[in-house]
Amino acid sequence: MFIETIKTDGLAHLSYVVGDGIVAAVIDPRRDVAIYQQIAQKNGVAITHVFETHRNEDLVTGSESLADRTGAVVLHGPTNEYQVPYAQTVREGERVQLGEASLTVLETPGHTLDSISIVLRHIETGDSPLCVFTGDALFINDVGRTDFYPDRADEVAGLLHDSLHHKLLPLGDQTIVYPAHGAGSVCGQKMANRDFSTIGYERRHSPRLSLARAEFIQAKIAEHHDYPPYFRKMEQINASIGPGPDRELRKPAPMSAEDFAGELENGLIAVDLRTAESFSGGHVPGSLALPVDMLTTFAGWLVPYKRRIGLIAAGPMQAERGARELARIGYDQVGGYLDDVITAWAVSGRSVGRVAAIEGPAFKQRHDGGPEFVLLDVRAKPEFDEGHLEDALHIYLGELPERLDELDPGSEIVTFCGSGQRALIAASVLKRAGFEKVTVNWGSMGACQSLGCRMAIC
Amino acid sequence: MFIETIKTDGLAHLSYVVGDGIVAAVIDPRRDVAIYQQIAQKNGVAITHVFETHRNEDLVTGSESLADRTGAVVLHGPTNEYQVPYAQTVREGERVQLGEASLTVLETPGHTLDSISIVLRHIETGDSPLCVFTGDALFINDVGRTDFYPDRADEVAGLLHDSLHHKLLPLGDQTIVYPAHGAGSVCGQKMANRDFSTIGYERRHSPRLSLARAEFIQAKIAEHHDYPPYFRKMEQINASIGPGPDRELRKPAPMSAEDFAGELENGLIAVDLRTAESFSGGHVPGSLALPVDMLTTFAGWLVPYKRRIGLIAAGPMQAERGARELARIGYDQVGGYLDDVITAWAVSGRSVGRVAAIEGPAFKQRHDGGPEFVLLDVRAKPEFDEGHLEDALHIYLGELPERLDELDPGSEIVTFCGSGQRALIAASVLKRAGFEKVTVNWGSMGACQSLGCRMAIC
Amino acid sequence: MFIETIKTDGLAHLSYVVGDGIVAAVIDPRRDVAIYQQIAQKNGVAITHVFETHRNEDLVTGSESLADRTGAVVLHGPTNEYQVPYAQTVREGERVQLGEASLTVLETPGHTLDSISIVLRHIETGDSPLCVFTGDALFINDVGRTDFYPDRADEVAGLLHDSLHHKLLPLGDQTIVYPAHGAGSVCGQKMANRDFSTIGYERRHSPRLSLARAEFIQAKIAEHHDYPPYFRKMEQINASIGPGPDRELRKPAPMSAEDFAGELENGLIAVDLRTAESFSGGHVPGSLALPVDMLTTFAGWLVPYKRRIGLIAAGPMQAERGARELARIGYDQVGGYLDDVITAWAVSGRSVGRVAAIEGPAFKQRHDGGPEFVLLDVRAKPEFDEGHLEDALHIYLGELPERLDELDPGSEIVTFCGSGQRALIAASVLKRAGFEKVTVNWGSMGACQSLGCRMAIC
Amino acid sequence: MFIETIKTDGLAHLSYVVGDGIVAAVIDPRRDVAIYQQIAQKNGVAITHVFETHRNEDLVTGSESLADRTGAVVLHGPTNEYQVPYAQTVREGERVQLGEASLTVLETPGHTLDSISIVLRHIETGDSPLCVFTGDALFINDVGRTDFYPDRADEVAGLLHDSLHHKLLPLGDQTIVYPAHGAGSVCGQKMANRDFSTIGYERRHSPRLSLARAEFIQAKIAEHHDYPPYFRKMEQINASIGPGPDRELRKPAPMSAEDFAGELENGLIAVDLRTAESFSGGHVPGSLALPVDMLTTFAGWLVPYKRRIGLIAAGPMQAERGARELARIGYDQVGGYLDDVITAWAVSGRSVGRVAAIEGPAFKQRHDGGPEFVLLDVRAKPEFDEGHLEDALHIYLGELPERLDELDPGSEIVTFCGSGQRALIAASVLKRAGFEKVTVNWGSMGACQSLGCRMAIC
Repeated sequence: MFIETIKTDGLAHLSYVVGDGIVAAVIDPRRDVAIYQQIAQKNGVAITHVFETHRNEDLVTGSESLADRTGAVVLHGPTNEYQVPYAQTVREGERVQLGEASLTVLETPGHTLDSISIVLRHIETGDSPLCVFTGDALFINDVGRTDFYPDRADEVAGLLHDSLHHKLLPLGDQTIVYPAHGAGSVCGQKMANRDFSTIGYERRHSPRLSLARAEFIQAKIAEHHDYPPYFRKMEQINASIGPGPDRELRKPAPMSAEDFAGELENGLIAVDLRTAESFSGGHVPGSLALPVDMLTTFAGWLVPYKRRIGLIAAGPMQAERGARELARIGYDQVGGYLDDVITAWAVSGRSVGRVAAIEGPAFKQRHDGGPEFVLLDVRAKPEFDEGHLEDALHIYLGELPERLDELDPGSEIVTFCGSGQRALIAASVLKRAGFEKVTVNWGSMGACQSLGCRMAIC
Repeated sequence: MFIETIKTDGLAHLSYVVGDGIVAAVIDPRRDVAIYQQIAQKNGVAITHVFETHRNEDLVTGSESLADRTGAVVLHGPTNEYQVPYAQTVREGERVQLGEASLTVLETPGHTLDSISIVLRHIETGDSPLCVFTGDALFINDVGRTDFYPDRADEVAGLLHDSLHHKLLPLGDQTIVYPAHGAGSVCGQKMANRDFSTIGYERRHSPRLSLARAEFIQAKIAEHHDYPPYFRKMEQINASIGPGPDRELRKPAPMSAEDFAGELENGLIAVDLRTAESFSGGHVPGSLALPVDMLTTFAGWLVPYKRRIGLIAAGPMQAERGARELARIGYDQVGGYLDDVITAWAVSGRSVGRVAAIEGPAFKQRHDGGPEFVLLDVRAKPEFDEGHLEDALHIYLGELPERLDELDPGSEIVTFCGSGQRALIAASVLKRAGFEKVTVNWGSMGACQSLGCRMAIC
Repeated sequence: MFIETIKTDGLAHLSYVVGDGIVAAVIDPRRDVAIYQQIAQKNGVAITHVFETHRNEDLVTGSESLADRTGAVVLHGPTNEYQVPYAQTVREGERVQLGEASLTVLETPGHTLDSISIVLRHIETGDSPLCVFTGDALFINDVGRTDFYPDRADEVAGLLHDSLHHKLLPLGDQTIVYPAHGAGSVCGQKMANRDFSTIGYERRHSPRLSLARAEFIQAKIAEHHDYPPYFRKMEQINASIGPGPDRELRKPAPMSAEDFAGELENGLIAVDLRTAESFSGGHVPGSLALPVDMLTTFAGWLVPYKRRIGLIAAGPMQAERGARELARIGYDQVGGYLDDVITAWAVSGRSVGRVAAIEGPAFKQRHDGGPEFVLLDVRAKPEFDEGHLEDALHIYLGELPERLDELDPGSEIVTFCGSGQRALIAASVLKRAGFEKVTVNWGSMGACQSLGCRMAIC
Repeated sequence: MFIETIKTDGLAHLSYVVGDGIVAAVIDPRRDVAIYQQIAQKNGVAITHVFETHRNEDLVTGSESLADRTGAVVLHGPTNEYQVPYAQTVREGERVQLGEASLTVLETPGHTLDSISIVLRHIETGDSPLCVFTGDALFINDVGRTDFYPDRADEVAGLLHDSLHHKLLPLGDQTIVYPAHGAGSVCGQKMANRDFSTIGYERRHSPRLSLARAEFIQAKIAEHHDYPPYFRKMEQINASIGPGPDRELRKPAPMSAEDFAGELENGLIAVDLRTAESFSGGHVPGSLALPVDMLTTFAGWLVPYKRRIGLIAAGPMQAERGARELARIGYDQVGGYLDDVITAWAVSGRSVGRVAAIEGPAFKQRHDGGPEFVLLDVRAKPEFDEGHLEDALHIYLGELPERLDELDPGSEIVTFCGSGQRALIAASVLKRAGFEKVTVNWGSMGACQSLGCRMAIC
């Protein structure tokens, strides 16, 4: 019997292959499914079942592709909201046998109404669960968000509480927990930065699990979660229209500076995958900075689905990674890429943009001197609420394009976040919108804490 | 019978595995020899012979390591200058049989006195050569440099002419040519950017091959070649002391900003492998910019052998590549690496350096306006001689550390090269030396040609 | 400028990616095209053109898939016979520019009427060809077969002679030759076992090139070539119906002994990919031995296209390789595989077949003693004609299923080939047909030559 | 925080890299340590500590090599028996901090006197263990063997009981268990075939954990464990002399049949790595069958340390794997390999051996008919005791070379095991010893159970 975890960075998505003998099931496959086939082959198993623990909001499911490639059946929890076209409905207690392993469905609604968990047992040990795949119901150190049904906020928070306390915790302390997301996912908030735990450990240490039902509901309702506009697109794809016919990702092709410039004039949106400091040092004017490590977190806020996309990358491997990560959240319109800015763009005599920067010590000095610039903090609201500088203006990076009118284009704006990376993305958004006096703060909150900048009193 | 070419970027070094049946020979192995063993294994052959076409000046040989790992014998051409400790001497006409292939030695001195070429024939076709491994005697579109014996300049240029015309060209037009270096190597000048040709093609098209003996000698003597200080170290290693016991490269370990800063104070030299625009956008003050693609070309000029080296890299893969490439030219003292500048250094509140930049159109405007700044062109002399801007001051990048006193630390200096990359390295050298008003020109000669900047009249 | 050779073992097929700058062309892609995309990506080029040197008989083309994935245009030589649905016709002298490289079409009919060769030149060297992609017109040490138009045998042999002497040889001795097949291909006979040569080398040493036109025609007509029945299928696919929509190969799934046995009863054909000695030591009764190294050579003779195929493999990697190689010649009906015979089949209590074997010395003794058994030599006719044992009966392995009635099921039959491998395949064919007294001769001709068996006098 | 499990098949050995931030520890490294460096690099961590949970009997430790390559400190539990030359002693309660993780030592003697377990906690959750590395104290579904101190059998069994009940179980049900071995290891008996569990799950289901102290001691003393002679060699290496200087494995080189035959005459021992049915179908006379999947299990019984080893392999990849696995248990004297038997040996006219075989149904018939042959069952004693055929003679495969005098060379012997694989190894041992009438039973116990052969009444 084996379990293999597939960790998809960017989305902080966790999917699993569990197998025994010559058969296996996949839990929550991502869109590019070749990896599951490779794992199956390496282990000498046939993939016969695909489970979806819930309808995903944050990524395009690979269930249909994987079923198409393997002949596996797709299983999805019960819901009245929609009918997943490629899946069969499974309900509480239904069981799939895989060699000496059994997978039993628990209905664990709350995060979504169709959420299920899947309990793995060994044939010989009767009732004792070995582990449980919890989807977005239970994470490591956190529980799923419950803000997807605003009209029924109390109800679904209560449902989640009951799922946790009447379904998952009763599995016993010895049960290993395999959730659908890890730290960094937008589907939770305070997930721990590791991917192993047990019911017993969570029961003792996960903050939300110690709350009584009423407190739990109250706490869940008080949480702030961002809802990136691309979630709507994912829901459509995953619940009804489907991701389209399975095919391997087309690799993006290199483009000349001339072609790239020509396409820019015809509406191409340029997405620069290079690091924050590269963009700051030199970039194609009008491009949007989305360093590849942050691509899937912010593309869904900042990149429209209808525009053709041109990537700017530090080499073909980075371009391919960008295209693959964009495809995972439904962006299929990547046309090609420009390989580097200095050697491919600047040498053609075209203009090169820069983003001014101020480093920690110099920033502290200016900030100590008083508010002669707009200090724009673009972190998520909970981060801002936990502690921020005096005189800081908060607009979440994801919402910045919609809230530009809150800023005066004539003022000097210093963008600010945890380290400077999101601040640089914000700077690129501002520059695209015509703001001219924009400076990124390298080090941002990290540096300020080391240096002792003036903090707002909460 | 198979030939596999191993291309080592950076050094533009070409080495070869040639095999038949169950045996093989390696021509000119680089220091990290695992790749030759992998190729041998893939092809099911035992490496029985290692040839050195000449004593390398530009890299540490892997012959001894490979012999140690495989039991192969190392063969080196005859010389009175030194005795290669790990090699046997081979002379004109000696032959090694590999299955149905034979490898015959031609003495082809000129580039070095011990230079040999190796002719591959098939057992059945008697005299007709299939191909020839030419070392640094004959390149694609160029011939080897002959400036290593300044007192005997005429003599060795003449030797090379004779090697080419009496040894190599007579092999016949049908002979495929496999040289030891490709475009970008410091061992030649005008090599073509491809790695396949024949004696016949070179005879017709290689500029130096159409010259009569006297003209050839004259032309070779008139050539300008840089002689990086690290060549001396390579000669020592390759001709006498040896590279030391064979072992796998130790991977560089990550370091915290605090440890890195502490070591910097204790004499660590910080080498930044990231792209030119990254360095420009934010760097560790005092660090030397050596973008990894240019590392082996310029490290031998700019990095002393005695100092402990700390790398600054965009992730562990780049750090490892940097350490590996440095080891190929004898730098074994890499201690560790700092992973990124913004997230690992700036967030600790430490100072972050920047290099100012001016892009093509803005530069043209300032340059057209007259010489209000020092325009420092750091390209190689032949590049400069082929065409440069009016008012440009030429100091080759490799020589810049020795010639800083030709520059006024109070002036504004704009560094300039082909695209901006070497210009950025030059800027980092100047900033380390205390120059403050340094600006890199993105696009440099490439942009100026597109935009029509004022050129000097030659 | 780069050329990368993709060698597809089994078919002994050679295809090429040639690129310069940021564009590339592919010559004669095989069906599973991901490798060309990987090479393009590694080199930072976009595939813009796909050339077919001729309509392939021996494999399914990947041109349409590759065009679908990259947007490249497919180019095919002129023919009146059919219209390749996914390709444009190119004619003598047409030229494609790839950066500084140019590719020029030569019409070189003979092997097929639509055969073209493609000449690579560098933009700066005018007329001098650097190399030529010769398709099936010129191989290393051989020329293409000319038996595909039996009614016009003289004419097409003459056409090939003219293509060679008036088109290819005039390119000059310095031209490197890149053919579409290497040693082991059914498309030629005496190809050398290496993949590099030049026009000059071939001109001097290739046996067929020294013949005058009339002799050449006579020699070509006298050649014996096998024509496996699957060629007809390849022609259909490549010239008219196409290989179907592009998709990644589905990996074969493991099957239990019970399922495998059940499917066998329902018409599955069991193809055993393991080594000859494995099959001899233990096999599933009724299975066909096709050791994976020989799979593509003999599947097209021995495996019908309409039957569902079950593989028997030494592990999942071998099963996948088998399925992939079968797909390259149009077998898409692989259902799954049985992983090993002893541990997966014998342990279930099912019958295990064996093939008796006789080794060299014992065989010699029996053979010396006189003809008390049928000695069945299954090598190709030219091999047999070159030398064979006294009393040997010759039936080519590919034709064996059609010629079983020439054998007496009651006699003892010893199968014989070059080493014992094809002999083992023949034994499996005989056993499937109900022959009971079948023995394979390990070592076969190889051993007999060492031991001095009685040879027939030719 | 991450944990990565490295599973070494053959030895069924589990080792771990656990890391947080930029540092990591390795638990129980195997001899070929490059994999730990790769994992460290991929995760951007420096390996600072290496733990040995106990002195290994079944493999050569990689601790010293890894320390040499990384500068890490090696930590080993306390013992009076010997001083591990490359390690520091750690005792109960000592703690290593790795970023936000802590690793605390528990002394858990019993399997060996120096056994320790290592408890992983998160800095924020105080006492709650996240997981524990249990070495050979606690396995999944089993506990460590306690037969290494025959004079103190009661005492050490008692020590293990106390380690389990007073040290490990008190960590709490929520604690994930990471042992040093999985199913198939000689270090335990009934390990489950999976590598994940928790203290809670083991507490409920592991058979040995439910026994009271006296019962536990009794049960442990009654256990039968094999003690392969190579254990003594491993103890020497790991406890005193060390594995020698760190270096990469030398890849085995191919040998011609002639060279192989010549070396055989000079004392080479030929080890055939191919499958059981390959060996049966054709082998080099005098060679020892050790199919590569069983190599590390039986080499230590059957291969002397002083002889030079020649491998017989199905290709270079298998040869390399064999050499690597042999090196893991201290065999460094692999000289080369013969690639295949039919194509490389039989074709040279040399003799080829065969092993006769009888399949399940035919065997049942003969066995039903009565004891007209010696039925030699070579399974481990516990397997034999659990159920065996009537008239079976039991000699464990590992002990066969020492007990040959219990067999009559004139009788017909049918070798028997679980599937036929170990039976084939036994047949090769018998044939090397001059037994002539040896037949392997394909399917063996597996087939007999399906077919209902006559079982002995226990």
